[in-house]
Amino acid sequence: MSSEPLAFELSQRGHRTTDQPISYLMAEALRRPNLISLAAGFVDDQTLPREAVAEAAAQLLSDPQTARSALQYGTTQGYSPLREAICEHLNALDHTPGRYQPQDVVVTTGSQQLLHLLTEVLIDPGGIVVTAWPTYFVYTGVLEAFGAQVRGVDMDEQGIIPEALDETLSRLEREGHLPGAGAGIVYITSYHQNPTGLTLSAQRRPRIVDIVRRHSEKAGRRILIVEDAAYRELTFHGEAPPSLRSFDEKGEYVALLQTFSKPFAPGMKTGYGLLPRDLVGSVLLQKTGRDFGSSNFNQQILNLVLRNGAFEAHVKKLCAAYAVKRDAMLAALDEHLGNIPGAGVTWTKPAGGLYVWLTLPPGMDAGRDGRLFGRSLEQGVLFVPGEYCYPPDPTRQAPGNTIRLSFGVADAQQIRRGVERLGQAIASLGRE
Amino acid sequence: MSSEPLAFELSQRGHRTTDQPISYLMAEALRRPNLISLAAGFVDDQTLPREAVAEAAAQLLSDPQTARSALQYGTTQGYSPLREAICEHLNALDHTPGRYQPQDVVVTTGSQQLLHLLTEVLIDPGGIVVTAWPTYFVYTGVLEAFGAQVRGVDMDEQGIIPEALDETLSRLEREGHLPGAGAGIVYITSYHQNPTGLTLSAQRRPRIVDIVRRHSEKAGRRILIVEDAAYRELTFHGEAPPSLRSFDEKGEYVALLQTFSKPFAPGMKTGYGLLPRDLVGSVLLQKTGRDFGSSNFNQQILNLVLRNGAFEAHVKKLCAAYAVKRDAMLAALDEHLGNIPGAGVTWTKPAGGLYVWLTLPPGMDAGRDGRLFGRSLEQGVLFVPGEYCYPPDPTRQAPGNTIRLSFGVADAQQIRRGVERLGQAIASLGRE
Repeated sequence: MSSEPLAFELSQRGHRTTDQPISYLMAEALRRPNLISLAAGFVDDQTLPREAVAEAAAQLLSDPQTARSALQYGTTQGYSPLREAICEHLNALDHTPGRYQPQDVVVTTGSQQLLHLLTEVLIDPGGIVVTAWPTYFVYTGVLEAFGAQVRGVDMDEQGIIPEALDETLSRLEREGHLPGAGAGIVYITSYHQNPTGLTLSAQRRPRIVDIVRRHSEKAGRRILIVEDAAYRELTFHGEAPPSLRSFDEKGEYVALLQTFSKPFAPGMKTGYGLLPRDLVGSVLLQKTGRDFGSSNFNQQILNLVLRNGAFEAHVKKLCAAYAVKRDAMLAALDEHLGNIPGAGVTWTKPAGGLYVWLTLPPGMDAGRDGRLFGRSLEQGVLFVPGEYCYPPDPTRQAPGNTIRLSFGVADAQQIRRGVERLGQAIASLGRE
Repeated sequence: MSSEPLAFELSQRGHRTTDQPISYLMAEALRRPNLISLAAGFVDDQTLPREAVAEAAAQLLSDPQTARSALQYGTTQGYSPLREAICEHLNALDHTPGRYQPQDVVVTTGSQQLLHLLTEVLIDPGGIVVTAWPTYFVYTGVLEAFGAQVRGVDMDEQGIIPEALDETLSRLEREGHLPGAGAGIVYITSYHQNPTGLTLSAQRRPRIVDIVRRHSEKAGRRILIVEDAAYRELTFHGEAPPSLRSFDEKGEYVALLQTFSKPFAPGMKTGYGLLPRDLVGSVLLQKTGRDFGSSNFNQQILNLVLRNGAFEAHVKKLCAAYAVKRDAMLAALDEHLGNIPGAGVTWTKPAGGLYVWLTLPPGMDAGRDGRLFGRSLEQGVLFVPGEYCYPPDPTRQAPGNTIRLSFGVADAQQIRRGVERLGQAIASLGRE
């Protein structure tokens, strides 16, 4: 008798956690070796900082004393010299010398872990999370798993729209959802957003902080702005605006999350955040139960590269390399999608990051089950259907005519060919 | 007007998560530089594998292709060649060539993360978790945060007592707690347990699996045995018994958790588990939302050291070094605690691991607020009060007269002096 095993009874969160749609796309990419993938948000293999890491690792391990320190357990909060170097880095970016303090920094297994920890600490099922519309799709999956009450706020070329955020928070108050279960989170990717490539403009930043402060005071409890600045350093020319955090003078309303993955090396899986001081303890308690600290070895390597200039030099190199690829993508979009008869396609012009966001004519379905996705696969190009990037807001209908393209992994030639194929797929549907 | 900031409203889990008592002990150790700490479960600084890691890192980073692979994102489940090498390692330990499969292995940020993930996937508030009495104290904090319904099962020199486990599960059934919220977990540290140093005997292992299988069938859903084998490789002489997992022939009831922290380098923060196949997907979904994979760089280094023999060589060196310190501790206990007038102190004789467990006379309070703890600090020695190691079982009263000593960090001379001081503290209380 071949017997079926007894079932495990999953927890509620286990039941609410569903597969990330990106898994399907990655599997599709593997199945079709000739496919050009403009889908993955990975960084460019060719730009990884081999020598900087090799040098730092060798230095660390050549001295028995530093080697022992790096190979031993660290602390849950993170390697103290690294937290100091991080503060110097953030203070330099924001022109706020001496303002940010190591005791407010937590180092995590990528900034994703910190995003998850903050949600864990603040959000019960039914808790309010407001995000941009569209937003980072891995977080939308997390929000579903937490059973959060989600609202999406419109963006324009200057990023999330303050009046729309204000109105959304007011509506939540009128409907009795705010205050609700948990403190509430406003999640904003403030630089070169995933998926749109848009950056929140400098003049909107203090207004966003003010709006959240005002609604917190109305609700009688603090709402936290989670500022995801994963792509901050990937600003190709000139200077990016100061962080939302810099406009929160007492450090009460904004948690600023950054990472070494995008601007340096994803394989080190190290991110960090500058938190409101009274949240640090709660986040560390959760992190203690999960892992009591991320890889100390990697943290000590990153401490060296931040201090010896290798990080900054690498960021410059990266920005130059990605700017070329961004330009290749925008030029190819002009050439191949700028003039498709009967199909007015528009797209964003990002000043950094890894993504361009396309909007097709309203009737055209860019979803995974639509004709364009299948036709594009036949043509040999993979994109992320924009539908994945809309958070689970029960009050809104996600549009079906958007696309995320990434210029992260493919080289300039593949990017041009991929965009050409996409143009052919769109044009062929227009003709039918 | 200096205004207090508005409060954040923490989630339920945020509220339920309290500080780990060990934090107090670590702070105490830092405050008193002349203190001999027999408290921390850290590994010995002098034994960390500096050269093995330096060689593997240099090899990995000297070749542009392997360097790129190591510095790029990995997968959520873990680096596939490492998962293969792990299976070979586990199959060698269990003498089960070819039996364990890489698709059932998940690599995590220390085995602590996997323990947390399994609890997340299976346990809702009120869910049943059965542990040894006493057990690993970091996990008891996690169980409180999850709001689990916990029961502790007695141990003797052969480890957890099968009849007592059987009776505990039967009682939970009679009381209507099983089946309950979630699938239920039986958590067993099967080798050189933290805190007692005791190993589950070979003949008890198949019986434990049978008992859990039988109660699962009665409950109509599977109960998972989480076998924490963090100290497995630290078996000082001869061979340790095969894993509980090896007696679970179809791989349905046991998740076997091991780590590179204790037998190699905690700074790499890499652990792993061999899971029932139908749990892998649920665990990976949770891990995706938390970090979508642990450090790929560290995994690729560990893959090299597992394959080039450096791991095995290091384990041999470690075992020799720790055996000397274990012997020093046991000899010092004989000398200084074996014959205290009016105080019959007994202790375990571990065959490996990092810990010795002391039982004082029933009336003697070894708790943090008791006289012995304070007197020991005055004498200059720190221990972990055994009271921290009892899980929150509402049906039992934790004894106050136990102590965990670790021979992990201190050298042999410090161990001898530390035990002498402890003996003086106990004797001085006996005289009062």
